[in-house]
Amino acid sequence: MEKIMLASDYQEGAHPAIIKRLCDTNLLSTEGYGTDDFSESGRVKIRKACECPDAAIHFLVGGTQTNATVIDALLRSYEGVIAADSGHISVHEAGAIEAGGHKVLPLCNDYGKIDAVQLRDYYETWLNDGNRDHMVKPGMVYLSQPTEYGTLYSLKELTSISNVCRKYHLPLYVDGARLAYALACPENDVTLPDLARLCDVFYIGGTKCGALMGEAVVIPDPTLIPHFFTIIKQHGALLAKGRLLGLQFDTLFTDDLYEQIGSVAIRSANRLRDLFKSKGYTLSFASPTNQIFLTVDDKQKEHLDSFSVSSFWEKADDGRTIIRFATSWATSEEKIKAFEKCL
Amino acid sequence: MEKIMLASDYQEGAHPAIIKRLCDTNLLSTEGYGTDDFSESGRVKIRKACECPDAAIHFLVGGTQTNATVIDALLRSYEGVIAADSGHISVHEAGAIEAGGHKVLPLCNDYGKIDAVQLRDYYETWLNDGNRDHMVKPGMVYLSQPTEYGTLYSLKELTSISNVCRKYHLPLYVDGARLAYALACPENDVTLPDLARLCDVFYIGGTKCGALMGEAVVIPDPTLIPHFFTIIKQHGALLAKGRLLGLQFDTLFTDDLYEQIGSVAIRSANRLRDLFKSKGYTLSFASPTNQIFLTVDDKQKEHLDSFSVSSFWEKADDGRTIIRFATSWATSEEKIKAFEKCL
Amino acid sequence: MEKIMLASDYQEGAHPAIIKRLCDTNLLSTEGYGTDDFSESGRVKIRKACECPDAAIHFLVGGTQTNATVIDALLRSYEGVIAADSGHISVHEAGAIEAGGHKVLPLCNDYGKIDAVQLRDYYETWLNDGNRDHMVKPGMVYLSQPTEYGTLYSLKELTSISNVCRKYHLPLYVDGARLAYALACPENDVTLPDLARLCDVFYIGGTKCGALMGEAVVIPDPTLIPHFFTIIKQHGALLAKGRLLGLQFDTLFTDDLYEQIGSVAIRSANRLRDLFKSKGYTLSFASPTNQIFLTVDDKQKEHLDSFSVSSFWEKADDGRTIIRFATSWATSEEKIKAFEKCL
Amino acid sequence: MEKIMLASDYQEGAHPAIIKRLCDTNLLSTEGYGTDDFSESGRVKIRKACECPDAAIHFLVGGTQTNATVIDALLRSYEGVIAADSGHISVHEAGAIEAGGHKVLPLCNDYGKIDAVQLRDYYETWLNDGNRDHMVKPGMVYLSQPTEYGTLYSLKELTSISNVCRKYHLPLYVDGARLAYALACPENDVTLPDLARLCDVFYIGGTKCGALMGEAVVIPDPTLIPHFFTIIKQHGALLAKGRLLGLQFDTLFTDDLYEQIGSVAIRSANRLRDLFKSKGYTLSFASPTNQIFLTVDDKQKEHLDSFSVSSFWEKADDGRTIIRFATSWATSEEKIKAFEKCL
Repeated sequence: MEKIMLASDYQEGAHPAIIKRLCDTNLLSTEGYGTDDFSESGRVKIRKACECPDAAIHFLVGGTQTNATVIDALLRSYEGVIAADSGHISVHEAGAIEAGGHKVLPLCNDYGKIDAVQLRDYYETWLNDGNRDHMVKPGMVYLSQPTEYGTLYSLKELTSISNVCRKYHLPLYVDGARLAYALACPENDVTLPDLARLCDVFYIGGTKCGALMGEAVVIPDPTLIPHFFTIIKQHGALLAKGRLLGLQFDTLFTDDLYEQIGSVAIRSANRLRDLFKSKGYTLSFASPTNQIFLTVDDKQKEHLDSFSVSSFWEKADDGRTIIRFATSWATSEEKIKAFEKCL
Repeated sequence: MEKIMLASDYQEGAHPAIIKRLCDTNLLSTEGYGTDDFSESGRVKIRKACECPDAAIHFLVGGTQTNATVIDALLRSYEGVIAADSGHISVHEAGAIEAGGHKVLPLCNDYGKIDAVQLRDYYETWLNDGNRDHMVKPGMVYLSQPTEYGTLYSLKELTSISNVCRKYHLPLYVDGARLAYALACPENDVTLPDLARLCDVFYIGGTKCGALMGEAVVIPDPTLIPHFFTIIKQHGALLAKGRLLGLQFDTLFTDDLYEQIGSVAIRSANRLRDLFKSKGYTLSFASPTNQIFLTVDDKQKEHLDSFSVSSFWEKADDGRTIIRFATSWATSEEKIKAFEKCL
Repeated sequence: MEKIMLASDYQEGAHPAIIKRLCDTNLLSTEGYGTDDFSESGRVKIRKACECPDAAIHFLVGGTQTNATVIDALLRSYEGVIAADSGHISVHEAGAIEAGGHKVLPLCNDYGKIDAVQLRDYYETWLNDGNRDHMVKPGMVYLSQPTEYGTLYSLKELTSISNVCRKYHLPLYVDGARLAYALACPENDVTLPDLARLCDVFYIGGTKCGALMGEAVVIPDPTLIPHFFTIIKQHGALLAKGRLLGLQFDTLFTDDLYEQIGSVAIRSANRLRDLFKSKGYTLSFASPTNQIFLTVDDKQKEHLDSFSVSSFWEKADDGRTIIRFATSWATSEEKIKAFEKCL
Repeated sequence: MEKIMLASDYQEGAHPAIIKRLCDTNLLSTEGYGTDDFSESGRVKIRKACECPDAAIHFLVGGTQTNATVIDALLRSYEGVIAADSGHISVHEAGAIEAGGHKVLPLCNDYGKIDAVQLRDYYETWLNDGNRDHMVKPGMVYLSQPTEYGTLYSLKELTSISNVCRKYHLPLYVDGARLAYALACPENDVTLPDLARLCDVFYIGGTKCGALMGEAVVIPDPTLIPHFFTIIKQHGALLAKGRLLGLQFDTLFTDDLYEQIGSVAIRSANRLRDLFKSKGYTLSFASPTNQIFLTVDDKQKEHLDSFSVSSFWEKADDGRTIIRFATSWATSEEKIKAFEKCL
């Protein structure tokens, strides 16, 4: 029997609606570089979903690329980006931010999150340091929603962080690689319009949320980043057949598909959590989105590995192992039932 | 009536065989980041086509990205890349190479090409300059095949250039964004195995040659670039759903599809050239691949614009305009006939 | 007999007045990093000499460093710097500008100079290029006064260039590595106040004009570059014992020493030019400042080399050689007489 | 009465022997860029002091510049540098390392130091991480001797670290900005030949150890860094009048001057420590070199500030303040006595 793959949300193909759309439009000729009608239509729908009619929307290909491009666009050469030390840019982007010349200024994370007080203290410590002109100037803030631990910022938390950012003129950027799973989560109270109101830039993830690939960068006030098209090109992030990205986001934002994709994954994740709990497994920490973290002993791990594929996360201090399961649009009822049977 | 779009080869969707394959495999779960079976199969086929069983093959998303990533991988911080002043990296990549810290060292082009004598002279001039340690060290050579002008290096020319490169330990890198159209061209005598033998790195273009997107980097001697995976990741050029790239190249290198795609485009281009000549249009220069350059006066331009879409190339010295048409897998017999009728 | 060294102005020690000042102040303790009283006093005097009471003045160590630091401070990541293709940043700075991520956009030089029409055409060509967003945005202009060929921009020429720059919001930066020799030249009509009025940033060279080392960056409108101190530090260009630089510029701008140093060198250079002409040597081109370029045949070169040291400049097209002599504060009457005797 | 300045070792002028030498040689003409006889003589003496006859020796101007240049020379684009989180490159160089494209990989410091076990664990954790190819590759190790806390690595500790580095092919680089004060310290057992044997690159600090400015980079095996001259130039770190650096190091390594400078400072520092202890002040931690750290309450601080100048270091957890005094060649017996009188 083939194992049930639940190691990551990017291990699946695209949502069938996207594939269908791709087939239907393949024979059309369109302008390149995102100036086509699909891209324009996608932009209109995203602006509407964000209640942000003036926003600039740019489609990029992947997450690391998007982070490097946006951060480079927001920072001056002497500035760095504040981020949780668990942030994707801090750990898993192979130094892409530093390759652009910028230091990632790490704050201790609490299950992936930082908070407003911590941020304010960090900035004010820099501000009041007699040697601050010999140090990297904090130039912006990076958050992930949901975080790399699958946790969520509440509206209150995000508002507090946004307030600190605005007070100190620090652009706030939110990495929404898995944003669909935040938006669809019952615990979540941060909407797209909230993000558009509280952030200076954020991106709506496609790759991990049902698209073949693609991330939609939203810049509520387009004057914030002049020449962003050129910056994208310089970063090798401009897709020649830009229609592929526009078409996917146009589809994702038609008939609430992005929401549905999130909902399916959250429902499946909750089903899995319940299953694990009922079988005596230990959830490593509260993580309400599409990633499920289990702390397992060797025997449990062996059993799970016998019929499923998860990701190694890290070694726990007690010698046990933390592993991760991730659901997606493709985690069907059948898959869950098959999993239940094996568990 | 809709205009006949011939402005560029990236204005079309993917070859239907690719779309079909995408549909057929969409529901499978696979490993990410290019470690999937499709990618592996694509690699095997490309190695075979290149007669280079040990080559490392990496799939990236787009051309500028590929150039920036490969060049960064080949150069040390104090080195620059020699290129024709018309080269894509010299002009149209928004400074992506310089953003990586490297100077593009431009040589005068002859319809897109440089030659071995010019290259040797340039290098030896640097070598013998008393101030050479105050100058950028030439660290590699960049060529395009076909060039940005649609012209071709002959096997003899490429061999001479390769000999200079090897004599002076300059890695030779060939940008094959439109390689299918070189390979399928009757005038061409440089094969994939020749490229693998004469270059240190080259890439086989997908985006402009029938794929949705994607470029296949071939490194005949993989020890040349250790940690290339990390370099790709750092450049934001690593696709999470790497299968999309692998699957496309696997398809392109099955049943000679890559050759067929090239052949269709070349046949169409030649048909168009004949049509233009028969109607008294002036071909700007000899350009045997899928790009056709016409020098037109205002009246001719107006007529062509009335029923077709081409690209503006540049103003000719005599006030006329040089425009470009480009064919692709999608330039069908019907399209040519419709074009003929209007012309 | 020892040869008469005239190969470059940086081959001499510092003007004795600087050495004396250094000795007199050595035992004082002062603040570091340019916050000392000497530096402050030097700034006051330079502001006065430039008739620019609000200017920010920063002392850096060397020319390449200063160029890289200022250019990095003025450009955004996607911008490049327009310069003569003979400019120091284009040729002899080992890619320092590109290492900072910026392309040098070269214009053909006329004995080291570019002109306003050329500049305007270049910028407007970019502006009107349909592909301009795929290209490096011209972000500033770099000139040298005097140029690398020892030639001078007239006030009229500089004003025209400045007008183009202001029209297109391109900061104008002038490299004054040898500025003393321009200022003291009878042919010159560009004063320090003119530079302060027409440029956005310029630097007054110390290293080649009588100091041990040091360049004084003048920013007439300090709001143009916030956080320049940090940018200097990031470039490794901040001297811990900043007093050394401040003290030297304070001395150079006391009792017209900077002018005197220039005058001595110009007088000596003119003496040498007359000597060469009287002996039938060919001046390569008109170059009124402290650098003298001769086009010599092998016999002439051998003779000159037998008693003096000059620099090789380049091979002339006719097989002869262009060599350079440079005078300085240290080119005394005795040295000239000794030279005359041997010539 | 003027206050006694003891805030830092770079607040003094140069050792009188250096000033004398500068005066004596000022009127000579020499080659530029470090190819002069003084520089060559300085190199010979340093090679001898290091018992390393083949070492390449390069003279640079300042510490941040030297660190950025060496680290850039040692790392490939995808590599980072391991350093204590208190290391100068981690905190006080305004992001100079990141500006070169490299991440500083911080390890928790123990009063400025890291140890071999910590280093090995860090490297092996990376090595065994399934995601390591998505992370910055650790490419070298940076230490300071003495550290930023004035503490010392013992020969045993340094040997252990060097062993880990060699095992994993990580070049070891030691920042010796204040090396004179380590070498002269009775507690120290690491000699220059030890450094030459155990490190891949280190630098002998001049700026903070009695020179006007200057740092001598020692590369025991010169083949390790080809084209270092060009790398120095690219970093704006090549002094035109290189003789200034050569001459100073030639002087520092004549008649044991470097040792004497260290000894004077250490003797003075120990005198100060005794004075502080005898008056009931709290030394913050054991720090045997020329920096003295006191934890003072507000009243103590006020008293000290009334007659002396120290540096603010940081706030202690109990609300008291940690301040730093630093001695140098200029901390004379008279200065200490004056200090004692006021204390």
